[in-house]
Amino acid sequence: MKIAIIGLGLMGGSFALAVRKIYDNLEIVGYDHNDNHSLEALELGIVDRVAEELEEFRDFDLIILAIPVDAIVKTLKNLTFISQKTTIIDFGSTKARIVEETPAEIRENVVPSHPMTGTEKFGPSAAIDNLYRGKVIVFCNIEKSGKHQSRLAREIFSKLGMKIFYMDAKEHDKHAAYISHMPHTVSYSLANSVMAQENPKAIIALAGGGFKDMSRIAKSSPNMWVDIFRQNRENVLDAMESFKKELEYCEKLIRENRWDELYKWMEEANRLHQIF
Amino acid sequence: MKIAIIGLGLMGGSFALAVRKIYDNLEIVGYDHNDNHSLEALELGIVDRVAEELEEFRDFDLIILAIPVDAIVKTLKNLTFISQKTTIIDFGSTKARIVEETPAEIRENVVPSHPMTGTEKFGPSAAIDNLYRGKVIVFCNIEKSGKHQSRLAREIFSKLGMKIFYMDAKEHDKHAAYISHMPHTVSYSLANSVMAQENPKAIIALAGGGFKDMSRIAKSSPNMWVDIFRQNRENVLDAMESFKKELEYCEKLIRENRWDELYKWMEEANRLHQIF
Repeated sequence: MKIAIIGLGLMGGSFALAVRKIYDNLEIVGYDHNDNHSLEALELGIVDRVAEELEEFRDFDLIILAIPVDAIVKTLKNLTFISQKTTIIDFGSTKARIVEETPAEIRENVVPSHPMTGTEKFGPSAAIDNLYRGKVIVFCNIEKSGKHQSRLAREIFSKLGMKIFYMDAKEHDKHAAYISHMPHTVSYSLANSVMAQENPKAIIALAGGGFKDMSRIAKSSPNMWVDIFRQNRENVLDAMESFKKELEYCEKLIRENRWDELYKWMEEANRLHQIF
Repeated sequence: MKIAIIGLGLMGGSFALAVRKIYDNLEIVGYDHNDNHSLEALELGIVDRVAEELEEFRDFDLIILAIPVDAIVKTLKNLTFISQKTTIIDFGSTKARIVEETPAEIRENVVPSHPMTGTEKFGPSAAIDNLYRGKVIVFCNIEKSGKHQSRLAREIFSKLGMKIFYMDAKEHDKHAAYISHMPHTVSYSLANSVMAQENPKAIIALAGGGFKDMSRIAKSSPNMWVDIFRQNRENVLDAMESFKKELEYCEKLIRENRWDELYKWMEEANRLHQIF
């Protein structure tokens, strides 16, 4: 199988490492605007070689788009020449705009997907071979993907040990705003509220696990996240409103010394125990 | 050494398990208002026996108070009979009120402390022997503790592998509001904003590591946290304001499509990389 990986960061690099473990006779070719990333990915053995032009991928079996979401939209428009049997899987964290803007002539080639995994690290050196195992991947509007393409996508991600969910792109974007995008705005805000204090190092020296866990994703790449917030702007703003409503209720209860109600509100949150 | 552990939950139970590994010839006696906890701690071998009355601890070497902060204030008032050489170490997450309200006649017995560790679990069965290793413990206003008592406290927590910080109780409470208490209000709010959606289970099924890490502490005990928010009310409200300021700035940038400024704001948060 000939696999192209466009974007040699955490997601693309980790996919290359993982897929090598489940298939023999792979040729994995990388492509990245950042020459340092290309070099690094070669040195780390993540890819076998690096391509200069997208045209080289014309008859490839699989093209993975592991780049920021705006770049996915653009790149799909530059891939209209690919062969009918090629499968393109994009890893974008937002899906509605990508699905809408995929050129009609390659719509069957594309399996719009979102692997719900990651770390706060980025670049080829962040790649790990077990990033996908046991995690969820969402396929969106797969009824418009070709039979061959959806079968290949299902096969690969099942072999990688992922749980596959199917969803409409718009529904995905709403859910992702709550479960991933808004929590990133919260984590960035938490980090910045401490960084704005007089001596953040002295404060952070005291940090137990709670703060570290909550601010971990505030280390994520602004590059990637500006695109996501832009593409999923309405849903993110809605989810931020819901979050703020809860926070302001909590604040009000503390300010007004309404401790019994605060207790009940925290018990509500404890119901998470029943879910995970 | 005779050690009393008042409060046989995660913190007290874990202390018992850990201290057994660093000293021989210990007698560890538990005390808990909750009879089930006492029984469970006995069955798990966390304590050697359970006391009926605080009076049994009169000539003990060490008394650990691992109970909610309001209960610490009350219990200290009921411990004025203890012998001069007894060391009392409280594990309260707020320190100013505890320090203020410690009866003068036992002030030298007490080493006000805050181990910056924990998990979202509670009860004796949550106890683990490595909860303290490698973590920070803050001693507050230790200049008012007796020489023998501060020496013993330092010895124990050094042997447990903890990093010791010294701080004024008021300073501690300000820092703790930012690094621990406000993040708890944020985590509870995040959990409740998702729980308030139409189908929270379907949303949470998609959760990657970010949401799970950020909502983990929303599983914490409301019992313990109502007390903390009450005792550190002003500092918590201040820290919530700072957090909200950041969140509202982020929201404004998204709403007004000010993507370059949003990028810079996220880069600010990325400076956390340099700290941990």
